[in-house]
Amino acid sequence: MYDLLAGLSVIEASSFVASPTAGLYCAQMGAEVIRVDQIGGGPDFRRWPVTDANDSLYWENLNRAKKSVALDLGRPEGRELLQALVRATGQFVTNFPVGGFLSHDLLAEGRPDLVTVRVMGWADGSPALDYTVNNSVGYPMLTGAGPDPVNHVLPAWDLLTGAYAAFALLAAIQRRSVTGEGGEVRLPLSDVAIGTVANLGGIAEVLYSGANRPRLGNAVYGLFGRDFVTRDGQRTMIVVVTPRQWANLIAALGLGDAIAVIEGERGVSFAKDDGLRFEHRDALYPLFERAIAARDHAGLAAAFDAGGIVHSPYRTMHDAVQDPALVAGNPIFGQADNPSGFAYPAAGAFATLPQQERRPPASAPRNGQHSEEILSERLSLSSGEIARLVDTGVVGVGAGGEDGL
Amino acid sequence: MYDLLAGLSVIEASSFVASPTAGLYCAQMGAEVIRVDQIGGGPDFRRWPVTDANDSLYWENLNRAKKSVALDLGRPEGRELLQALVRATGQFVTNFPVGGFLSHDLLAEGRPDLVTVRVMGWADGSPALDYTVNNSVGYPMLTGAGPDPVNHVLPAWDLLTGAYAAFALLAAIQRRSVTGEGGEVRLPLSDVAIGTVANLGGIAEVLYSGANRPRLGNAVYGLFGRDFVTRDGQRTMIVVVTPRQWANLIAALGLGDAIAVIEGERGVSFAKDDGLRFEHRDALYPLFERAIAARDHAGLAAAFDAGGIVHSPYRTMHDAVQDPALVAGNPIFGQADNPSGFAYPAAGAFATLPQQERRPPASAPRNGQHSEEILSERLSLSSGEIARLVDTGVVGVGAGGEDGL
Repeated sequence: MYDLLAGLSVIEASSFVASPTAGLYCAQMGAEVIRVDQIGGGPDFRRWPVTDANDSLYWENLNRAKKSVALDLGRPEGRELLQALVRATGQFVTNFPVGGFLSHDLLAEGRPDLVTVRVMGWADGSPALDYTVNNSVGYPMLTGAGPDPVNHVLPAWDLLTGAYAAFALLAAIQRRSVTGEGGEVRLPLSDVAIGTVANLGGIAEVLYSGANRPRLGNAVYGLFGRDFVTRDGQRTMIVVVTPRQWANLIAALGLGDAIAVIEGERGVSFAKDDGLRFEHRDALYPLFERAIAARDHAGLAAAFDAGGIVHSPYRTMHDAVQDPALVAGNPIFGQADNPSGFAYPAAGAFATLPQQERRPPASAPRNGQHSEEILSERLSLSSGEIARLVDTGVVGVGAGGEDGL
Repeated sequence: MYDLLAGLSVIEASSFVASPTAGLYCAQMGAEVIRVDQIGGGPDFRRWPVTDANDSLYWENLNRAKKSVALDLGRPEGRELLQALVRATGQFVTNFPVGGFLSHDLLAEGRPDLVTVRVMGWADGSPALDYTVNNSVGYPMLTGAGPDPVNHVLPAWDLLTGAYAAFALLAAIQRRSVTGEGGEVRLPLSDVAIGTVANLGGIAEVLYSGANRPRLGNAVYGLFGRDFVTRDGQRTMIVVVTPRQWANLIAALGLGDAIAVIEGERGVSFAKDDGLRFEHRDALYPLFERAIAARDHAGLAAAFDAGGIVHSPYRTMHDAVQDPALVAGNPIFGQADNPSGFAYPAAGAFATLPQQERRPPASAPRNGQHSEEILSERLSLSSGEIARLVDTGVVGVGAGGEDGL
C-alpha cells in the first residue's frame, strides 16, 4: 500500500479478473475503491479456489483494500443507488454491458465530467473471456510441442487488460484535469489481444512470411533460449540476450572450442547475433544438451549466477511459495485479516518506491461492509433511510443475507 | 492515437518488451515519448521476426509513435547527454540497472522532482526474463496435459509489467502534482509474477491445500470450460460463467434430461454453481464430448452465439489476422509508414474512446531520427555543437552509422 493516488475515489462494479485487478492496483496505490456488489456476492464471489466453508480465496485476493457496498441490483431502487454513487464519485470502473442501466451516457446525465472505464469481451459487445480470446488470436496453436493446441493457464489477457484499464483510467483523469471533460474508455479483451499480437510483430510476421511460426516447445523464438535437463534430472530454462551472457555461458560449459568449430563450418559468428544463435539451433542445441546433461544442477546454477546468465529451474507453485526470496522475505507481502479466516501472505503493490514507506496489505471487504458508511457519506442518506433500504432488502450491510455474511 | 496525455513528455531508455510497452501505451495516448537509443540500435534492435533486410518487425511495432535520439552510451559524453535529457524532461522509463549512470539518485541531482519508473528482473537487481520468471512461480508445471512443463509463448509477464509500469508512471506523476515530490518506482518482473500468483488466490490455495493444483490440459479450473471437438473435426473452446449460459448450453446440445439424471444421482444442482460443474466433470465432460462430436461446427457456433455462450474455435495466428472483426474492419488498426518499408495493419491504442476522434497509428522512428530536434529543444544545443557531437560519433542522426540508417 502506497499513497500515490490518495484523494482519488473510484466506484467499481465488476467481476472475474480484468476489471477487479484495475481497481485492485488503484487501491494498492492509495485510491479509495468502492465495489458495489450484489447482496450476497456477484457471479465470481464463490469462484474457486474456495475453503471448506466455500469462501473464495480468489475473490478475497482480487479485492483487497477495497470497500464494499451491497445492493440488490435486480431491483430498480438498487440500480438507482449505484447510478447515484457513480455520479456522486465521478470515476467508474466496470465490466457491465455497454448498454443498460450502467451505460456511460445514462450515468453522465448530471455528471458530464464522469470518467468510465469499461472492460468488454469483443468490441461489438458480444461475450468473450480470456480463454476464448486467446484461441481467437492463435496463441494456443503456438504453445507446447504440438500437435494439439495448449491454452495458457495464466489469465494473461485478463491481467493485461486490468493493468491497462488502470492506466487508461489515470490517463482519462489527467485529460479531465486539463480540459474539464470526462468520457468513456472502452477496453475489449479482443482488442487488447489482437493489438498485442500486432505490438509484438505478430501481424507483420505472418503477413511477411505468409505462414505461421513453427511450434517451438519451450524454446524461445529468435534467440538462444530453451529448457535443458541436468545430470541429476533438473529441467532448467536458459535464455541469452546479451553478448556477455553468451560468452559466459559457453565458458561455463566449456563449449568455446566446439562452438568455434561450428562457426568455422557455417561461416558465422554467434558472439553478437541472437538471430544466428536461433537459426543454427540444430547444431547448438545438441552441444548444450550434452554439456548440461554432464553436470549437476547446483554447480551449474552457481556458475550461471556468477556469469550473469539468466536461468531458472522449473518448479511447482507450491515450491515457489516456499522460496524466501519470492514470499517470506519479500517486502511486497504482509499479513491481512482475510474474510475467509485463513491466514497467509497477502500481496501489496507490485512496485516498490524506495523513497516511501510501504504500508501493509489490507484485506478484502465483507459483502456490504461499507454500505452504511458510503451511502451516508456520498448520498447523504439518513440512518433512517438506510435502515428502510436494509429492511426492504435493497441494501445489504454485511450481516444476515443468504450467506450469513 | 488519442490525446489523453497531451503535454506529457517521457524519456525512455529501454529494450525488450516490458519497458518499451510502457512507453508505447503512453505514446498511443498522446504523450511525447523520446527513446534514447544506442547509435545503431540497442540489444533488441534486430530482434526477430526480421525482414530479409534484417529490419525487426518486433522493434518497429513496440516503438510506434515514439521519437529516437541516438547516442553512444559507451562514452561518458553520450551518457551525460542522456542524463541531461532525463533531468530536462522530468519523467523517465527504463530497464537499465538500478545502479550506474542511470541510478535515480544520480539523475535526481538537480531535478529533485524526477519520476523514474524502472523495470527490473529480480528485486535484488539480478537478471530475469519472462521465461525464467514464469518458471520461478510455477505456471509451466500447470500448463498443458503433462507430464512435461510447458512455457507460454506469449510474454505475459513482460506485458503485464509494461502496462503496470505505465499505470505506475501516471500514479507517481499524480502524486507529484499534489506534493511536488518525485521519486523512483521499481518494478521487478519477479514481484509482478509472484504478486499475481497471490492476487489470483494461488498462494492461499497451495498453502490451504498443501498441494499443487492438478494439471488440467485445456480445461479451466473451478468452472465448466474446456476444449471439445466437433463432428467435422473443429476443436473449440467453451466456457460457462453465468446460469443463463449454462441453461442455454445444455438446451443447445439437448442435454437437459441427461444432466437432470446426473443431478439426481449425485444430489446436486448445476444450475447456479460453477464449482459443482467442475467438481463433477467426470460425469459432465463425456456427455458434452458425445453431444458435440455429433454436430458440425457451423451449426453449433450459430446456436451458441444465439444463446450468448462464450466459445471460440482454435485457429492459427495467420488465420486470426485474416478475420475482419479482428483486423481489417477493426478501427484500432491503420496504416503507418514503417522503417522496414513493409506495409501491414498497425495497431493504435487498445482502448476506444467513443467521444474522441481516433487518430491513425504512427510509425516507429528511425534510429536517431529526432536527435537534432530534441538536443536543440531540450538542451539548447546549437547546430554547431550538435554537428561536433555527430562528427565525433557521440550523437547519431539517422544517416550513416554502422547500419546505414
